[in-house]
Amino acid sequence: MLVKEKVEQAVSILKELDVDCWLTFTRESQINGDPSLAFLLDGDVTWHTALIVTSSGDTRAIAGRYDVKAIEDVGAYRQVVGYVEGIREPLLAAIREIDPKTIAVNFSQDSEICDGLTHGMYLALHGLLAEIGCAERLVSAERVVSALRQRKTAAEIQAIRRAVRAAEVIFDEAAGFIRPGVTEQEIARFMQDAAKKAGHDLAWEARACPSVFTGPETAGAHYAPTGRAVERGHIVNMDFGVKALGYCSDLQRTYYVLEEGEASAPAEVWKGFDAVVEAIDRARRALKPGALGHEVDAVARRHVVESGFEEFPHALGHQVGRFSHDGTALLGPPWEKYARKPFQPIEAGMVFTLEPRVTVPGRGIATIEEMVLVKQGGSEYLSTPQVELVLI
Amino acid sequence: MLVKEKVEQAVSILKELDVDCWLTFTRESQINGDPSLAFLLDGDVTWHTALIVTSSGDTRAIAGRYDVKAIEDVGAYRQVVGYVEGIREPLLAAIREIDPKTIAVNFSQDSEICDGLTHGMYLALHGLLAEIGCAERLVSAERVVSALRQRKTAAEIQAIRRAVRAAEVIFDEAAGFIRPGVTEQEIARFMQDAAKKAGHDLAWEARACPSVFTGPETAGAHYAPTGRAVERGHIVNMDFGVKALGYCSDLQRTYYVLEEGEASAPAEVWKGFDAVVEAIDRARRALKPGALGHEVDAVARRHVVESGFEEFPHALGHQVGRFSHDGTALLGPPWEKYARKPFQPIEAGMVFTLEPRVTVPGRGIATIEEMVLVKQGGSEYLSTPQVELVLI
Repeated sequence: MLVKEKVEQAVSILKELDVDCWLTFTRESQINGDPSLAFLLDGDVTWHTALIVTSSGDTRAIAGRYDVKAIEDVGAYRQVVGYVEGIREPLLAAIREIDPKTIAVNFSQDSEICDGLTHGMYLALHGLLAEIGCAERLVSAERVVSALRQRKTAAEIQAIRRAVRAAEVIFDEAAGFIRPGVTEQEIARFMQDAAKKAGHDLAWEARACPSVFTGPETAGAHYAPTGRAVERGHIVNMDFGVKALGYCSDLQRTYYVLEEGEASAPAEVWKGFDAVVEAIDRARRALKPGALGHEVDAVARRHVVESGFEEFPHALGHQVGRFSHDGTALLGPPWEKYARKPFQPIEAGMVFTLEPRVTVPGRGIATIEEMVLVKQGGSEYLSTPQVELVLI
Repeated sequence: MLVKEKVEQAVSILKELDVDCWLTFTRESQINGDPSLAFLLDGDVTWHTALIVTSSGDTRAIAGRYDVKAIEDVGAYRQVVGYVEGIREPLLAAIREIDPKTIAVNFSQDSEICDGLTHGMYLALHGLLAEIGCAERLVSAERVVSALRQRKTAAEIQAIRRAVRAAEVIFDEAAGFIRPGVTEQEIARFMQDAAKKAGHDLAWEARACPSVFTGPETAGAHYAPTGRAVERGHIVNMDFGVKALGYCSDLQRTYYVLEEGEASAPAEVWKGFDAVVEAIDRARRALKPGALGHEVDAVARRHVVESGFEEFPHALGHQVGRFSHDGTALLGPPWEKYARKPFQPIEAGMVFTLEPRVTVPGRGIATIEEMVLVKQGGSEYLSTPQVELVLI
């Protein structure tokens, strides 16, 4: 169902971008899965497989014989051709018949999500197309794949909303579990068990989903929970997400563990927390179709620095979709590793995280990650924004 | 532990093959995972990451700042360098310092398992190396990666034995569940539940693990179980495997459902089944270090044809490891799609499936898949070979 909807969307994107043919070329997709495949098929393929979509609405699949029936069942392809010995003949016949001006394939230096074609498969395809004089027609499908992933359909947004809600419930449950003496690992296990009980897969590798950091001098991010125990006076933060119907949530929440006799967090903790809350809301207000990612990043980054904290050593936010890190356009600074991602214009239908962070010396890291949907003229929260420290 | 062992093995393979530097270059490994990564790291990385192993035993990792601590923990790298803005500077500094004659990277037209480098990342690396005049040193690491995957260590073989045993137990349990009227889907659910109860992940995508085919005129292979019910007089076959400690099993078993009053299967069913059993054992006897995959394939293929059946439209067997389809060398015919895989010499330490099939008209498909380990001078079964039809 989703595949048919996305393949139809691909046809209209090809028309709009004036790209006449998009070719996804893959093999053994369990091993080197092209991230575009989930929009084109319902499962894995084994042998060399070509999935062709044209701007005129022609849709064809060429696959090893035992993969044919599962591809036919998807119902998205006008023609499914099977082979036993090799893809060369049926693939070249199809390209000859379509005779496209350009053949857009899934590679990109800038965008990993558009870069599913391996170098060996590129060479193989180039060699085959050279036989019929078409090798020079190969171009990057970055714009096609970016548009297809970032323009979320109603069904995709619905799935993401479910994943967000499910993670929020588990964050709330965790607040009742966090207490002095409990370790990061125990908190993580509690959350993973809750996800399992609710029937949700984790949004990223289990080793660090959730990440849990308590107190000062931790690894800071992307690190597995340790045996370190929660102490009074610590800031605790967690990064967690689940999948619903194949789509992810990715959220962070911040907690403070009261000292004996303390009625609220110390002023410096609130100051850090409030800087994060305000940076997120300013960025959300700047996030609208036509804005550029680095401009939105700068709004939050500037607020954090003006509030007296060091700037965060990462992008403000990334897109979310079938992966927790998804899409090309990024709300990030113009650093080398982000290439042109922060210069892609923002479009309606994109789903972003907003996740600035500040370090409160001696206490820990205050960091919140919200998720927002870009709409005509602005953007709205998909998550319920955290505006108060959770006091433990 | 496994990572340290495999990185040490990589150093000795580089020496043996006279390749002075192996570079694995990846980013967002959740999205485009290089299949070599599991031998080099314990988890995923986010930003551009270079993992360097040299024939002199130098081991270095260059990664985004938040990935550094997890890589340090692996204990396999002499030096781990983190960066914030981009990998360009630390990567070029390392290459300048090592100054290798060649830089072997993970691409291969022939072997998907050696083809983890995406085309966009190849272009990015080529561009960076061109700045210091080293782009022409890039070569394929196919021989390095193939050797590393196929020369299984004692720990890897132990894990595969556990995965084989676990799957065999579930096949046995399934024999008690198969009966007339039960559907392919119900049998599959029974087996998946059994795997879950035993705490094992499935060896490939759940949609078709197990595959279950009852009677004639089925999709034949790689297809999801359907609502078709088992009938008396049907051959039932199943393809199933689980993972243990990250390593797979991949087995097929064949059952016959007796007609009322029948004491055994009809002669034509036995004839097909026996042809498969004998083809497997002949192939196993031909499988030894130094043999070529297409020769071993031909032994089984010839026996099937000489027994009066059509030849199977696929390879006799593939390697098994962290993926159910693993490795480069293949026991297959010299068909286009298999490229040079059937011409790679067989080595001790390889684990192969042997899986010929025959169609028995009006009854179904007799197919057995065993797993074997190549040793000095021959090969031994890792699975307990099926030599009798299971009569239901």
